[in-house]
Amino acid sequence: MTGKKNIGASVALCPTPLALCGTYDAGGKPNLATLAWVGVCCSTPPAVQISLQRPRYTYEAILDKREFTVNIPSEKQAKAADFCGLVSGRSVDKFASAGLTQRRGEFVNAPVVNEFPICMECRVINVLELGSHVLFVGEILASWVSEDCLGSGGNADPSLVAPLLYSPIGHSYYGMGSRVGGAFDIGKTLIEGEK
Amino acid sequence: MTGKKNIGASVALCPTPLALCGTYDAGGKPNLATLAWVGVCCSTPPAVQISLQRPRYTYEAILDKREFTVNIPSEKQAKAADFCGLVSGRSVDKFASAGLTQRRGEFVNAPVVNEFPICMECRVINVLELGSHVLFVGEILASWVSEDCLGSGGNADPSLVAPLLYSPIGHSYYGMGSRVGGAFDIGKTLIEGEK
Repeated sequence: MTGKKNIGASVALCPTPLALCGTYDAGGKPNLATLAWVGVCCSTPPAVQISLQRPRYTYEAILDKREFTVNIPSEKQAKAADFCGLVSGRSVDKFASAGLTQRRGEFVNAPVVNEFPICMECRVINVLELGSHVLFVGEILASWVSEDCLGSGGNADPSLVAPLLYSPIGHSYYGMGSRVGGAFDIGKTLIEGEK
Repeated sequence: MTGKKNIGASVALCPTPLALCGTYDAGGKPNLATLAWVGVCCSTPPAVQISLQRPRYTYEAILDKREFTVNIPSEKQAKAADFCGLVSGRSVDKFASAGLTQRRGEFVNAPVVNEFPICMECRVINVLELGSHVLFVGEILASWVSEDCLGSGGNADPSLVAPLLYSPIGHSYYGMGSRVGGAFDIGKTLIEGEK
Protein backbone atom coordinates (compact mmCIF):
# COMPACT_ATOMS: atom_id res chain seq x y z
CA MET A 1 0.00 0.00 0.00
CA THR A 2 1.84 3.07 -1.27
CA GLY A 3 2.71 5.59 1.43
CA LYS A 4 1.76 3.28 4.29
CA LYS A 5 3.57 0.52 6.16
CA ASN A 6 1.85 -2.60 7.51
CA ILE A 7 3.09 -2.97 11.08
CA GLY A 8 1.35 -6.34 11.35
CA ALA A 9 -1.80 -7.61 12.99
CA SER A 10 -1.19 -5.45 16.02
CA VAL A 11 -3.06 -3.11 18.30
CA ALA A 12 -2.57 0.39 16.93
CA LEU A 13 -5.16 2.43 18.78
CA CYS A 14 -2.94 5.35 19.62
CA PRO A 15 -3.31 6.34 22.39
CA THR A 16 -5.71 4.54 24.70
CA PRO A 17 -6.91 5.84 28.07
CA LEU A 18 -5.04 4.55 31.07
CA ALA A 19 -7.23 3.35 33.91
CA LEU A 20 -6.91 1.15 36.99
CA CYS A 21 -9.48 -1.36 38.11
CA GLY A 22 -10.33 -1.38 41.80
CA THR A 23 -11.68 -4.49 43.55
CA TYR A 24 -11.83 -6.08 47.00
CA ASP A 25 -10.57 -9.64 47.15
CA ALA A 26 -12.31 -12.48 49.00
CA GLY A 27 -10.62 -11.38 52.24
CA GLY A 28 -11.62 -7.74 51.78
CA LYS A 29 -8.17 -6.48 50.81
CA PRO A 30 -8.35 -3.68 48.25
CA ASN A 31 -6.51 -4.20 44.99
CA LEU A 32 -5.76 -2.01 42.01
CA ALA A 33 -4.89 -3.39 38.56
CA THR A 34 -3.56 -1.32 35.69
CA LEU A 35 -5.79 -2.06 32.71
CA ALA A 36 -4.19 -2.48 29.36
CA TRP A 37 -7.55 -2.35 27.67
CA VAL A 38 -10.52 -0.19 28.56
CA GLY A 39 -13.09 1.70 26.53
CA VAL A 40 -16.56 3.16 26.63
CA CYS A 41 -19.10 0.88 24.96
CA CYS A 42 -22.59 2.23 25.58
CA SER A 43 -24.37 5.51 26.32
CA THR A 44 -27.69 4.17 27.70
CA PRO A 45 -26.99 2.61 30.09
CA PRO A 46 -23.61 4.33 30.37
CA ALA A 47 -21.07 1.51 30.29
CA VAL A 48 -17.37 0.77 29.97
CA GLN A 49 -15.65 -2.40 28.87
CA ILE A 50 -12.53 -3.62 30.60
CA SER A 51 -10.58 -6.61 29.34
CA LEU A 52 -8.53 -8.83 31.63
CA GLN A 53 -6.40 -11.93 31.30
CA ARG A 54 -7.70 -14.91 33.27
CA PRO A 55 -4.63 -15.39 35.51
CA ARG A 56 -4.95 -11.91 36.97
CA TYR A 57 -5.98 -11.53 40.59
CA THR A 58 -8.53 -8.89 39.61
CA TYR A 59 -10.21 -11.35 37.25
CA GLU A 60 -11.05 -13.62 40.20
CA ALA A 61 -12.31 -10.70 42.27
CA ILE A 62 -14.65 -9.47 39.52
CA LEU A 63 -16.05 -12.94 38.92
CA ASP A 64 -16.72 -13.13 42.66
CA LYS A 65 -18.15 -9.66 43.35
CA ARG A 66 -19.46 -8.62 39.90
CA GLU A 67 -18.55 -5.06 40.86
CA PHE A 68 -15.49 -2.91 40.26
CA THR A 69 -14.30 0.65 39.93
CA VAL A 70 -12.47 2.29 37.02
CA ASN A 71 -10.01 4.89 38.32
CA ILE A 72 -8.24 7.39 36.08
CA PRO A 73 -4.83 8.60 37.24
CA SER A 74 -3.41 12.00 36.58
CA GLU A 75 -0.16 12.38 34.67
CA LYS A 76 1.62 13.10 37.95
CA GLN A 77 0.56 9.66 39.23
CA ALA A 78 2.27 7.83 36.35
CA LYS A 79 4.72 5.86 38.52
CA ALA A 80 1.99 4.54 40.80
CA ALA A 81 -0.19 3.67 37.80
CA ASP A 82 2.62 1.77 36.10
CA PHE A 83 3.60 0.00 39.32
CA CYS A 84 0.10 -1.45 39.70
CA GLY A 85 0.60 -3.30 36.41
CA LEU A 86 3.99 -4.70 37.37
CA VAL A 87 3.11 -6.64 40.52
CA SER A 88 0.23 -8.85 41.63
CA GLY A 89 -2.24 -8.11 44.40
CA ARG A 90 -1.91 -11.76 45.38
CA SER A 91 1.40 -11.00 47.08
CA VAL A 92 1.59 -7.21 47.37
CA ASP A 93 -0.52 -4.53 49.05
CA LYS A 94 -0.40 -2.21 46.07
CA PHE A 95 -2.13 0.68 47.82
CA ALA A 96 0.50 0.74 50.57
CA SER A 97 3.44 0.32 48.18
CA ALA A 98 2.19 3.00 45.80
CA GLY A 99 1.32 5.44 48.57
CA LEU A 100 -2.37 5.44 47.69
CA THR A 101 -5.45 5.27 49.89
CA GLN A 102 -9.01 4.17 49.19
CA ARG A 103 -12.53 4.11 50.51
CA ARG A 104 -15.51 1.91 49.66
CA GLY A 105 -17.69 3.12 46.80
CA GLU A 106 -21.16 4.41 47.58
CA PHE A 107 -22.87 2.27 44.95
CA VAL A 108 -20.69 -0.83 44.67
CA ASN A 109 -18.50 -2.90 46.94
CA ALA A 110 -15.22 -1.82 45.38
CA PRO A 111 -12.55 0.71 46.29
CA VAL A 112 -12.41 4.32 45.11
CA VAL A 113 -8.83 5.66 44.88
CA ASN A 114 -8.80 8.87 46.90
CA GLU A 115 -5.81 10.41 45.14
CA PHE A 116 -6.95 9.84 41.54
CA PRO A 117 -9.02 12.56 39.85
CA ILE A 118 -11.81 10.36 38.39
CA CYS A 119 -13.52 7.16 39.51
CA MET A 120 -16.46 5.31 37.96
CA GLU A 121 -18.40 2.79 40.08
CA CYS A 122 -19.45 -0.14 37.88
CA ARG A 123 -21.58 -3.26 38.03
CA VAL A 124 -20.98 -6.13 35.59
CA ILE A 125 -23.83 -6.50 33.07
CA ASN A 126 -22.11 -8.64 30.41
CA VAL A 127 -19.13 -10.94 30.08
CA LEU A 128 -17.64 -11.91 26.72
CA GLU A 129 -14.90 -14.53 26.40
CA LEU A 130 -12.38 -13.52 23.76
CA GLY A 131 -8.94 -15.08 23.29
CA SER A 132 -6.26 -14.03 25.75
CA HIS A 133 -8.69 -11.64 27.43
CA VAL A 134 -12.18 -11.68 28.92
CA LEU A 135 -14.24 -8.57 28.27
CA PHE A 136 -16.42 -7.31 31.12
CA VAL A 137 -19.07 -4.68 30.44
CA GLY A 138 -19.66 -2.54 33.50
CA GLU A 139 -22.68 -0.30 33.86
CA ILE A 140 -21.56 3.01 35.34
CA LEU A 141 -23.62 3.78 38.45
CA ALA A 142 -21.75 6.92 39.50
CA SER A 143 -18.77 8.95 38.34
CA TRP A 144 -16.73 10.82 40.90
CA VAL A 145 -14.50 13.78 40.10
CA SER A 146 -12.07 15.29 42.58
CA GLU A 147 -13.14 18.75 43.60
CA ASP A 148 -9.82 20.27 42.54
CA CYS A 149 -10.63 19.16 38.96
CA LEU A 150 -13.86 21.13 38.82
CA GLY A 151 -13.73 24.22 36.65
CA SER A 152 -16.25 26.93 35.84
CA GLY A 153 -19.81 26.16 36.86
CA GLY A 154 -18.65 23.22 38.93
CA ASN A 155 -18.08 21.08 35.81
CA ALA A 156 -15.20 18.63 35.51
CA ASP A 157 -12.38 20.16 33.47
CA PRO A 158 -10.24 17.66 31.51
CA SER A 159 -7.26 20.02 31.64
CA LEU A 160 -7.39 19.95 35.44
CA VAL A 161 -7.74 16.15 35.39
CA ALA A 162 -4.53 16.05 33.28
CA PRO A 163 -5.04 12.33 32.54
CA LEU A 164 -2.37 9.83 31.67
CA LEU A 165 -2.55 8.08 28.29
CA TYR A 166 -0.97 4.86 27.04
CA SER A 167 0.25 4.18 23.53
CA PRO A 168 0.51 0.48 22.56
CA ILE A 169 2.74 1.76 19.76
CA GLY A 170 6.02 2.32 21.56
CA HIS A 171 4.67 1.08 24.93
CA SER A 172 4.84 4.57 26.41
CA TYR A 173 2.78 6.96 28.49
CA TYR A 174 1.80 10.42 27.33
CA GLY A 175 0.05 13.41 28.81
CA MET A 176 -2.98 15.09 27.28
CA GLY A 177 -2.38 18.13 25.09
CA SER A 178 -4.32 21.32 24.44
CA ARG A 179 -8.01 21.65 23.64
CA VAL A 180 -8.58 21.58 19.87
CA GLY A 181 -12.28 22.46 19.74
CA GLY A 182 -15.83 21.42 20.50
CA ALA A 183 -17.21 18.06 19.39
CA PHE A 184 -20.30 18.09 17.16
CA ASP A 185 -19.27 21.64 16.35
CA ILE A 186 -15.96 22.28 14.58
CA GLY A 187 -16.96 20.10 11.60
CA LYS A 188 -20.06 22.18 10.84
CA THR A 189 -18.05 24.37 8.46
CA LEU A 190 -17.86 21.37 6.10
CA ILE A 191 -21.64 20.90 5.90
CA GLU A 192 -23.01 22.13 2.55
CA GLY A 193 -25.13 25.23 3.02
CA GLU A 194 -23.55 26.04 6.36
CA LYS A 195 -20.24 27.21 4.93
CA MET B 1 -17.86 11.46 49.46
CA THR B 2 -15.56 14.12 50.89
CA GLY B 3 -13.37 15.84 48.32
CA LYS B 4 -15.19 14.33 45.35
CA LYS B 5 -18.31 15.26 43.41
CA ASN B 6 -20.71 12.70 41.91
CA ILE B 7 -21.34 13.91 38.36
CA GLY B 8 -23.99 11.22 37.90
CA ALA B 9 -24.16 7.88 36.15
CA SER B 10 -22.23 9.26 33.22
CA VAL B 11 -19.35 8.31 30.97
CA ALA B 12 -16.22 9.81 32.49
CA LEU B 13 -13.42 8.06 30.65
CA CYS B 14 -11.32 11.12 29.99
CA PRO B 15 -10.18 11.19 27.25
CA THR B 16 -11.07 8.41 24.80
CA PRO B 17 -9.37 7.80 21.46
CA LEU B 18 -11.11 9.30 18.46
CA ALA B 19 -11.48 6.96 15.51
CA LEU B 20 -13.57 6.70 12.36
CA CYS B 21 -15.13 3.52 11.08
CA GLY B 22 -14.78 2.86 7.35
CA THR B 23 -17.24 0.67 5.45
CA TYR B 24 -18.61 0.18 1.95
CA ASP B 25 -22.39 0.25 1.68
CA ALA B 26 -24.49 -2.22 -0.32
CA GLY B 27 -23.89 -0.16 -3.47
CA GLY B 28 -20.12 0.01 -2.89
CA LYS B 29 -20.05 3.65 -1.79
CA PRO B 30 -17.39 4.26 0.88
CA ASN B 31 -18.56 5.71 4.16
CA LEU B 32 -16.81 6.99 7.24
CA ALA B 33 -18.46 7.26 10.66
CA THR B 34 -17.02 9.05 13.65
CA LEU B 35 -17.09 6.59 16.53
CA ALA B 36 -18.12 7.86 19.90
CA TRP B 37 -16.97 4.65 21.51
CA VAL B 38 -13.95 2.56 20.62
CA GLY B 39 -11.37 0.63 22.63
CA VAL B 40 -8.93 -2.23 22.51
CA CYS B 41 -10.35 -5.41 24.03
CA CYS B 42 -7.95 -8.29 23.36
CA SER B 43 -4.25 -8.94 22.68
CA THR B 44 -4.45 -12.45 21.17
CA PRO B 45 -6.09 -12.17 18.76
CA PRO B 46 -5.51 -8.42 18.62
CA ALA B 47 -8.97 -6.89 18.68
CA VAL B 48 -10.85 -3.61 19.05
CA GLN B 49 -14.41 -2.99 20.12
CA ILE B 50 -16.52 -0.36 18.43
CA SER B 51 -20.01 0.51 19.59
CA LEU B 52 -22.69 1.85 17.26
CA GLN B 53 -26.30 2.89 17.53
CA ARG B 54 -28.67 0.81 15.43
CA PRO B 55 -30.04 3.64 13.26
CA ARG B 56 -26.59 4.48 11.90
CA TYR B 57 -25.80 3.77 8.27
CA THR B 58 -22.51 2.13 9.28
CA TYR B 59 -24.39 -0.33 11.51
CA GLU B 60 -26.20 -1.71 8.45
CA ALA B 61 -22.97 -1.93 6.48
CA ILE B 62 -21.16 -3.88 9.19
CA LEU B 63 -24.05 -6.30 9.63
CA ASP B 64 -23.91 -6.85 5.86
CA LYS B 65 -20.15 -7.10 5.28
CA ARG B 66 -18.85 -8.17 8.72
CA GLU B 67 -15.73 -6.14 7.93
CA PHE B 68 -14.65 -2.59 8.69
CA THR B 69 -11.65 -0.35 9.19
CA VAL B 70 -10.75 1.78 12.22
CA ASN B 71 -9.03 4.97 11.09
CA ILE B 72 -7.26 7.34 13.47
CA PRO B 73 -7.15 11.00 12.46
CA SER B 74 -4.38 13.39 13.29
CA GLU B 75 -5.09 16.51 15.31
CA LYS B 76 -4.86 18.57 12.10
CA GLN B 77 -7.77 16.53 10.66
CA ALA B 78 -10.11 17.46 13.51
CA LYS B 79 -12.69 19.26 11.34
CA ALA B 80 -13.03 16.34 8.93
CA ALA B 81 -13.25 13.89 11.84
CA ASP B 82 -15.99 15.90 13.53
CA PHE B 83 -17.89 16.40 10.26
CA CYS B 84 -18.16 12.64 9.75
CA GLY B 85 -20.16 12.40 12.98
CA LEU B 86 -22.53 15.24 12.06
CA VAL B 87 -24.00 13.94 8.80
CA SER B 88 -25.17 10.54 7.52
CA GLY B 89 -23.62 8.54 4.72
CA ARG B 90 -27.17 7.75 3.60
CA SER B 91 -27.43 11.19 2.04
CA VAL B 92 -23.88 12.57 1.89
CA ASP B 93 -20.62 11.47 0.26
CA LYS B 94 -18.54 12.19 3.34
CA PHE B 95 -15.20 11.52 1.65
CA ALA B 96 -15.88 14.14 -1.02
CA SER B 97 -17.29 16.70 1.42
CA ALA B 98 -14.41 16.26 3.88
CA GLY B 99 -11.74 16.31 1.17
CA LEU B 100 -10.62 12.77 1.96
CA THR B 101 -9.75 9.87 -0.33
CA GLN B 102 -9.69 6.11 0.23
CA ARG B 103 -8.62 2.80 -1.20
CA ARG B 104 -9.81 -0.72 -0.50
CA GLY B 105 -8.05 -2.55 2.34
CA GLU B 106 -5.72 -5.40 1.50
CA PHE B 107 -7.30 -7.79 4.01
CA VAL B 108 -10.93 -6.71 4.23
CA ASN B 109 -13.51 -5.18 1.94
CA ALA B 110 -13.56 -1.80 3.64
CA PRO B 111 -11.95 1.57 2.89
CA VAL B 112 -8.61 2.79 4.22
CA VAL B 113 -8.47 6.57 4.60
CA ASN B 114 -5.37 7.70 2.70
CA GLU B 115 -4.89 10.95 4.60
CA PHE B 116 -5.19 9.55 8.16
CA PRO B 117 -1.99 8.36 9.88
CA ILE B 118 -3.25 4.98 11.18
CA CYS B 119 -5.72 2.41 9.88
CA MET B 120 -6.61 -1.03 11.28
CA GLU B 121 -8.33 -3.56 9.03
CA CYS B 122 -10.86 -5.57 11.06
CA ARG B 123 -13.17 -8.56 10.74
CA VAL B 124 -16.13 -8.97 13.10
CA ILE B 125 -15.66 -11.88 15.51
CA ASN B 126 -18.29 -11.02 18.14
CA VAL B 127 -21.43 -8.93 18.47
CA LEU B 128 -22.92 -7.94 21.81
CA GLU B 129 -26.26 -6.18 22.10
CA LEU B 130 -26.18 -3.58 24.86
CA GLY B 131 -28.73 -0.80 25.36
CA SER B 132 -28.50 2.15 23.02
CA HIS B 133 -25.43 0.66 21.36
CA VAL B 134 -24.34 -2.60 19.78
CA LEU B 135 -20.75 -3.62 20.51
CA PHE B 136 -18.79 -5.17 17.66
CA VAL B 137 -15.48 -6.90 18.36
CA GLY B 138 -13.19 -6.68 15.35
CA GLU B 139 -10.11 -8.83 15.01
CA ILE B 140 -7.27 -6.69 13.67
CA LEU B 141 -5.81 -8.29 10.53
CA ALA B 142 -3.39 -5.49 9.67
CA SER B 143 -2.42 -2.07 10.98
CA TRP B 144 -1.21 0.56 8.54
CA VAL B 145 0.87 3.55 9.53
CA SER B 146 1.63 6.44 7.16
CA GLU B 147 5.29 6.54 6.26
CA ASP B 148 5.64 10.12 7.47
CA CYS B 149 4.76 8.86 10.99
CA LEU B 150 7.63 6.40 11.12
CA GLY B 151 10.46 7.41 13.40
CA SER B 152 13.79 5.84 14.24
CA GLY B 153 14.21 2.25 13.10
CA GLY B 154 11.10 2.50 10.96
CA ASN B 155 8.82 2.26 14.00
CA ALA B 156 5.59 4.22 14.29
CA ASP B 157 6.10 7.30 16.45
CA PRO B 158 2.99 8.47 18.40
CA SER B 159 4.32 12.05 18.43
CA LEU B 160 4.38 12.05 14.62
CA VAL B 161 0.89 10.53 14.52
CA ALA B 162 -0.27 13.45 16.71
CA PRO B 163 -3.66 11.79 17.29
CA LEU B 164 -6.90 13.51 18.15
CA LEU B 165 -8.60 12.66 21.45
CA TYR B 166 -12.19 13.11 22.61
CA SER B 167 -13.32 13.92 26.12
CA PRO B 168 -16.93 12.98 26.95
CA ILE B 169 -16.50 15.38 29.86
CA GLY B 170 -16.94 18.75 28.18
CA HIS B 171 -17.60 17.20 24.72
CA SER B 172 -14.31 18.50 23.39
CA TYR B 173 -11.33 17.39 21.34
CA TYR B 174 -7.77 17.48 22.62
CA GLY B 175 -4.34 16.81 21.20
CA MET B 176 -1.83 14.40 22.71
CA GLY B 177 0.80 15.83 25.04
CA SER B 178 4.41 14.97 25.75
CA ARG B 179 5.85 11.54 26.46
CA VAL B 180 5.87 10.83 30.21
CA GLY B 181 7.86 7.58 30.26
CA GLY B 182 7.99 3.92 29.36
CA ALA B 183 5.21 1.51 30.30
CA PHE B 184 6.14 -1.50 32.43
CA ASP B 185 9.16 0.55 33.40
CA ILE B 186 8.68 3.82 35.29
CA GLY B 187 6.86 2.08 38.17
CA LYS B 188 9.77 -0.23 38.92
CA THR B 189 11.15 2.26 41.44
CA LEU B 190 8.18 1.41 43.68
CA ILE B 191 8.92 -2.33 43.77
CA GLU B 192 10.42 -3.37 47.11
CA GLY B 193 14.03 -4.38 46.72
CA GLU B 194 14.42 -2.50 43.45
CA LYS B 195 14.41 0.94 45.03
